[in-house]
Amino acid sequence: MKAEIITIGDEMLIGQIVDTNSAWMAGELNKIGVGVTQITTISDTPVDLVNALDDAQLRADVILITGGLGPTKDDRTKKVLAEYFNSELITHQPTLYHVTAFFKKRGLGVNQLNKDQALVPECCEVLHNPAGTAPGMLFEHNDKIFVSMPGVPFEMKEIMQTAVLPGLKDKNGGGVIVHKTVHTIGIPESILAERLEEWENALPEYIHLAYLPNPGQIRLRFSAFGNDEAQLKKSIEAEIVKLKKMIPEAIFGYDNDTLAGVVGKLLVGKKTTVATAESCTGGQIAHSITSEPGCSEWFKGSIVAYANEVKIGVLKVEEKDIEEYGAVSEQVVKQMAERVRENLNADYSVATSGIAGPTGGTADKPVGTVWIAVASPNETIARKYSFSHNRERNIIRSSQTALNMLRLVLVDE
Amino acid sequence: MKAEIITIGDEMLIGQIVDTNSAWMAGELNKIGVGVTQITTISDTPVDLVNALDDAQLRADVILITGGLGPTKDDRTKKVLAEYFNSELITHQPTLYHVTAFFKKRGLGVNQLNKDQALVPECCEVLHNPAGTAPGMLFEHNDKIFVSMPGVPFEMKEIMQTAVLPGLKDKNGGGVIVHKTVHTIGIPESILAERLEEWENALPEYIHLAYLPNPGQIRLRFSAFGNDEAQLKKSIEAEIVKLKKMIPEAIFGYDNDTLAGVVGKLLVGKKTTVATAESCTGGQIAHSITSEPGCSEWFKGSIVAYANEVKIGVLKVEEKDIEEYGAVSEQVVKQMAERVRENLNADYSVATSGIAGPTGGTADKPVGTVWIAVASPNETIARKYSFSHNRERNIIRSSQTALNMLRLVLVDE
Repeated sequence: MKAEIITIGDEMLIGQIVDTNSAWMAGELNKIGVGVTQITTISDTPVDLVNALDDAQLRADVILITGGLGPTKDDRTKKVLAEYFNSELITHQPTLYHVTAFFKKRGLGVNQLNKDQALVPECCEVLHNPAGTAPGMLFEHNDKIFVSMPGVPFEMKEIMQTAVLPGLKDKNGGGVIVHKTVHTIGIPESILAERLEEWENALPEYIHLAYLPNPGQIRLRFSAFGNDEAQLKKSIEAEIVKLKKMIPEAIFGYDNDTLAGVVGKLLVGKKTTVATAESCTGGQIAHSITSEPGCSEWFKGSIVAYANEVKIGVLKVEEKDIEEYGAVSEQVVKQMAERVRENLNADYSVATSGIAGPTGGTADKPVGTVWIAVASPNETIARKYSFSHNRERNIIRSSQTALNMLRLVLVDE
Repeated sequence: MKAEIITIGDEMLIGQIVDTNSAWMAGELNKIGVGVTQITTISDTPVDLVNALDDAQLRADVILITGGLGPTKDDRTKKVLAEYFNSELITHQPTLYHVTAFFKKRGLGVNQLNKDQALVPECCEVLHNPAGTAPGMLFEHNDKIFVSMPGVPFEMKEIMQTAVLPGLKDKNGGGVIVHKTVHTIGIPESILAERLEEWENALPEYIHLAYLPNPGQIRLRFSAFGNDEAQLKKSIEAEIVKLKKMIPEAIFGYDNDTLAGVVGKLLVGKKTTVATAESCTGGQIAHSITSEPGCSEWFKGSIVAYANEVKIGVLKVEEKDIEEYGAVSEQVVKQMAERVRENLNADYSVATSGIAGPTGGTADKPVGTVWIAVASPNETIARKYSFSHNRERNIIRSSQTALNMLRLVLVDE
């Protein structure tokens, strides 16, 4: 069974809002084995909806439509659907009761615009909308299913979960799709693809692999199609075992894992803590860490030593070393890591010092030059990186690389 | 001139990522007076792209395509486009130099997959991608313009801004749209709309106003349509003068201004500096500040005092006050601000202490309770806020509120 999503709304075509409904709907359909062939965003002009409906039913069995069901005059979906399916608009009494009660509960009267929310094409099955006043509508036509829902995310989700997905799951029968995402860091996409090529070509036909790049990270997404969910999961796990042997150092997590979250788990497992000393990353590492709920168990704090006087005065880096080697140097970044580890009484620490740009670069140390250090109870290591010319990316890449250096130290120990 | 956007990627059709590119592109096209008729998301199957291209050129003059340009074998856009426009793939030498240099700079060799990034259909105009290895491609065919770009947001944006939008703006000619955005903070959308209603209803017909909410901020975007650019700008400025009288304290900037950037300008104007002491915001304020190029002129650094022992040991907050009043209290947040101002030798400082959640709340201090302090050479002020139950939003709202408190102190002095 294949589905398509049609999203109606000028606010998306002028870039005022991002369409988050479609991704949610696609994800839910996928879980019950219904693939989505296309997502189409159109304006609220009737002819556009008619054309989109004509096209979609050529490709899909189920067409899910959101938007254009509000009470105001630019909401025309219901009228267009009535005409499209040659049906009259009639008052649906249970919906009228619901709308009246909905407003009464809020201490408000019901005007004609509200009452018109209970008008529906006679041929449709009405899908109750407990969260709002515009009901969902389901049409069966030429062996295809059409569902119209409000564009308000929580109303749409409520109708999908109670009235749409269970029915589609039944109709779709056996087929399932299983997804699993592997997060990697430190290997560029092209090199990763080269290293994995032979294995990738030998994957079973029912397993599809996708490379999804994030700044500094590549996610590898497995999708397995079939009838036996347990068997599909087992097949993916078997491939991940092979993958782990090929790129053991690069894999840091699965599915919803984050780099900071994985580092946190490793630290908690050792009953240890971390602190950061940040120059060029300016607090971004601390921010990644403190975005993780429960990080107070393993995070002490950070000294963002942006000015050299803070490196000297607060972090206690040797002034003469900054003068001799510069703030962006192995000597200074190592001291930053060691001092913050001591001062904040942490077991581990990471430190960054670099030139994020756009200015501040020299021939010797161009924009994008970053020194990163990790201090542990045993030793302090430091490494030099050359990132790009873009300030924002340099900050993100430096932060991720620093967390990953710490991760590798924690894994190795 | 009308445009359509075609987004290629299975990751959107299975709901793994939300398509944010399209909203950004639609917004930028709108600014230059190019309306978007449809946004279509399809899989990376060649036949789907061919069909989408066939359909799109029936409705639009410009077709913008993103995705499917990576080095791996599931990236097939380039090959499909070459066939679609009856053209051979040839090596584009400047791109080959760029790709080689791109990897060399990172200390990496270039493999065949990387080199293949320089293959382009002979008939296209190559659009340089300074931020990555896959170039953009522009085709003119049957009086229509087709542009193919990578799906990685910052690469797409770079190509759009440097190579696509200026050309489309020229071609579109005639009518002009003038946009101006006013950034506000501190007034919720519904209250703002109420306060501005009368003025908004009296706006000239050719000026459109949109409310664009961000967490904690509302942007008011003016769009004026007409032929005389200077006159349109003057009309908008006249409306902004009226707006300033209605909500003087809430307006912090215009167009590309950021809150941290505005604070920076105020500090530089007074030849002063700032430091931050962060508990619940965990480095997010420092990160906002250090995202501003040139912030070293006015930012000293930050102490992220997540653990109480760091508040006591590094920031030198009185231990007895933490015991007596709790870390989330007026007494402690004021000391944090004062101590970091002294220790980091800054003129001003901000400090935060709160319960970001999801755990840690009490009946007395529920999740979302945040104390914020600003210390200046003259005095220290502190205020208590009650935000929401969502950790991420609490961190952002707290950071913005802290920067805004500092801004108001700087403006008032």
